[in-house]
Amino acid sequence: MVFDSDDTEAAGTAKVQIAMRYDEKNKQFAILVIQLSNVQALLLQQDQKVNIRVAVLPCLESTSCLFRTRPLEVSDNLMYNEVFWVSISYPALRQKTLRVDVCTVDKSRLEECLGGAQISLAEICRSGEKSTRWYNLLSSKYLQKQNRK
Amino acid sequence: MVFDSDDTEAAGTAKVQIAMRYDEKNKQFAILVIQLSNVQALLLQQDQKVNIRVAVLPCLESTSCLFRTRPLEVSDNLMYNEVFWVSISYPALRQKTLRVDVCTVDKSRLEECLGGAQISLAEICRSGEKSTRWYNLLSSKYLQKQNRK
Repeated sequence: MVFDSDDTEAAGTAKVQIAMRYDEKNKQFAILVIQLSNVQALLLQQDQKVNIRVAVLPCLESTSCLFRTRPLEVSDNLMYNEVFWVSISYPALRQKTLRVDVCTVDKSRLEECLGGAQISLAEICRSGEKSTRWYNLLSSKYLQKQNRK
Repeated sequence: MVFDSDDTEAAGTAKVQIAMRYDEKNKQFAILVIQLSNVQALLLQQDQKVNIRVAVLPCLESTSCLFRTRPLEVSDNLMYNEVFWVSISYPALRQKTLRVDVCTVDKSRLEECLGGAQISLAEICRSGEKSTRWYNLLSSKYLQKQNRK
């Protein structure tokens, strides 16, 4: 099996840069949404604003675990630099998955998510060291098409 | 915001152990599905068999990028140890996301996926070094419920 991978395809993925850090002393998990690159790959209209939604899942009904950045106008690189803090024990955190979605809000204020990534926290570091990485975003439209097959 | 995290919750997540390695000389990406733990957390009937499905996404129509392990009877720890090879260039691989799903097949041979993980390959190592990690699985039923909210 060989992928027909050309450069067009290689350049074509939207990516989000996220940093995470667990502060064991204060039992606080910090999620820093840094930036979004190549958001155009998610087939956006140019006049939309884009925000990033992060959720620590699964989430108990009694707690809130969904956060949103401010919306930004579409451009090549969108700098968010927003931090969200979650109070959680280390054993509980290691059972969670961070879901990151890139969303727009239309005129009727309905949120539409264009693509996302899932980051397992099973091996998240407890030492307080910051992990900063880029994550590829899978297009929601692409996944819906796949699921219909 | 504080999570009410008790030990029951902490023990409750199904996890899959995956190893990955990129062989630059031969432009081959190896996915080793090692094992599955605590699959009962995905609310399975005890008499079902479980297989793991891995997909390298997005995938061009002309190529096959979906692999399945053999099905195993449910127990606490399911050892698969199956390797799948994908021929792909390093720049193309870095645009991909590995989607891992835990599935069952019912008597009418319909596949149902109970839970999954997504692993971004944006920062996959090109040196040939093997990365072996555990990944939490998010229950599909849980995600469907969340999406209806």
